[in-house]
Amino acid sequence: MKNQIYFTPGPSALYFTVREHLKSALDSNVASISHRSSFFKSFYGETVENLRTLLKLPDNFQIFFTGSATEIWERIIENCVDKESFHLVNGAFSERFYKTAVAFGKEAHKVESIAGSCPEIDNLMIAETHELIGITHNETSTGATQPLEDIYKIREAFPDQLIAVDAVSSLPYVNIDYSKVDTVYFSVQKCFGLPPGLGVWLVNDRCIEKAENRMRRGKNIGYYHSLPTLYEKGLKNQTPETPNSMGIYLLGKVVEDMLKKGIDQIRKETNSKAAILYNSLNKSDVFKPFVEEKRHQSKTVIVGKTAVSSADIIQDLKKKGMTIGGGYGEFKDLHIRIANFPTHSKEQIEMLADALEKI
Amino acid sequence: MKNQIYFTPGPSALYFTVREHLKSALDSNVASISHRSSFFKSFYGETVENLRTLLKLPDNFQIFFTGSATEIWERIIENCVDKESFHLVNGAFSERFYKTAVAFGKEAHKVESIAGSCPEIDNLMIAETHELIGITHNETSTGATQPLEDIYKIREAFPDQLIAVDAVSSLPYVNIDYSKVDTVYFSVQKCFGLPPGLGVWLVNDRCIEKAENRMRRGKNIGYYHSLPTLYEKGLKNQTPETPNSMGIYLLGKVVEDMLKKGIDQIRKETNSKAAILYNSLNKSDVFKPFVEEKRHQSKTVIVGKTAVSSADIIQDLKKKGMTIGGGYGEFKDLHIRIANFPTHSKEQIEMLADALEKI
Repeated sequence: MKNQIYFTPGPSALYFTVREHLKSALDSNVASISHRSSFFKSFYGETVENLRTLLKLPDNFQIFFTGSATEIWERIIENCVDKESFHLVNGAFSERFYKTAVAFGKEAHKVESIAGSCPEIDNLMIAETHELIGITHNETSTGATQPLEDIYKIREAFPDQLIAVDAVSSLPYVNIDYSKVDTVYFSVQKCFGLPPGLGVWLVNDRCIEKAENRMRRGKNIGYYHSLPTLYEKGLKNQTPETPNSMGIYLLGKVVEDMLKKGIDQIRKETNSKAAILYNSLNKSDVFKPFVEEKRHQSKTVIVGKTAVSSADIIQDLKKKGMTIGGGYGEFKDLHIRIANFPTHSKEQIEMLADALEKI
Repeated sequence: MKNQIYFTPGPSALYFTVREHLKSALDSNVASISHRSSFFKSFYGETVENLRTLLKLPDNFQIFFTGSATEIWERIIENCVDKESFHLVNGAFSERFYKTAVAFGKEAHKVESIAGSCPEIDNLMIAETHELIGITHNETSTGATQPLEDIYKIREAFPDQLIAVDAVSSLPYVNIDYSKVDTVYFSVQKCFGLPPGLGVWLVNDRCIEKAENRMRRGKNIGYYHSLPTLYEKGLKNQTPETPNSMGIYLLGKVVEDMLKKGIDQIRKETNSKAAILYNSLNKSDVFKPFVEEKRHQSKTVIVGKTAVSSADIIQDLKKKGMTIGGGYGEFKDLHIRIANFPTHSKEQIEMLADALEKI
């Protein structure tokens, strides 16, 4: 079934300009040039600067590229945690970050809330010895969003800890105050509408210092993607390895397009498209929003619980040219998951909402 | 300067069918589909099977995908070495594998030969305690090839050690007897002519057992790209993370094209094109092959030492539409490096050889 619109929560529909940029990348030999050449350094620099502008990233933050956000979980634990980390867990992805810490032999602590909710942040049992707090802004498996105010309150209560924010499926929609967090990461195949194969890691000087400190004490921080190595290469607009250069190039171009459109406009549209989708779910007899608390309802990944098998609904929509996601893990046949990313037009979302209402 | 033929030793010219396959990938939504979907599993399976056929890989070997060959160095050390490794070093890349082991706190030993040569393999001081022997089949920085017979002799002398072979810039040209090695790895942006961003890791059961053994003893083997995790996911034609799915798809298609052409034909052509290039270097007053011993001269990365600045020569050839590589590291201005990969036609190589002779 070709000519599908992908509303899957990542990989998802490509940003509408990607095909054109891919052509220009091929025409200018982006895939063939050396990653030590001035051409590479120039588009690497543009990608970083464009992202910096789009996200309003302060000067004490650096931008690094990895193979995936999954890789970034490991690099954070390796570089920034000696012994103990603390995790807010409310779904499969926040749980996986916690498990990564365990796998690396850390004493990992967690507070857990049921799927579709977010952990309450009052009275968190975070000790002074917990060096890093992992918070998932947007849990892609359930569509639950931990409000930014929660994250900022945690920062106020625990100023000495490093705060790591998973914004895999919410950047650049979410307007983060970077002075109140230490590291944030995302994947390009979600809101940026790019082919998968690139994770983007934003880190401040506190994280880099922690990694350097660990290195000085002979602790394992990895090698080619350790923060000191990434920092040293990044200063020269380079990567330690031969990277996914097409991905870095395309990201720069898509961010340029987003800058032309304006991030405020993107946020406004995301809000209004999300309202259309939640409205459909609320009106329906077949669906209800899985996340009940309004302030926890994600604007970028909308999850509905279904009164009937979601597999049938998905099949039905596919016949109409719309591919949406099923539930994650245990919710496979009980949920539908819908991406509301910048590339999804209001018209497309309305078409989907109409189709949902008719079920 | 557009319309260049890239003879750079990777990234290099794209395999001549890549543009077409990229179009078919976009048309069939490869970049948008879920990496847990049946479509993903089907092309992942095809890529693995095609590679298995092309390389004549025995059943006790698995094929895994990483972000780069640089990553594979780390994963080998993490998964397969408790305390000590041994490395044959003859250039920047073999040295970097050695340094990776050091960075991970291993007691790493090496035998070193000067750039442009290969270590002598008689009387190697390899102890029983050295768990893994790292050998670079084709040192991309100097164009020196360690003959396969050397590798097999090392295997005979040290049957208990794991043998890791860097074939980053020589597979699929090099016809390895996989019963005599334990792990081999390569990058797709060299002989396979693909955009960078994917490393391919071939591992046998001994490597996987070693990793499992380390895991049971509570040693750090990483998490998402540990051999047990890769193995578990690979059995289902999946990857632990959202991978570079376009890269995996394109690799499968290019290998299919290579199978149609026939690996014997590719090897024959590579030999004859290499002969043309070495002949030009030998005839020239300006160039000499950097690798003097004939049996060490790489067939896929031909390196010439230059009597004049190589930067000028490179600039000159660029004006004629041919981009070749400069020397690596300390040899930057003293060498030229030329890729002789499957996508480079005999006509292109002859044109380059002619131009070299005229300098």
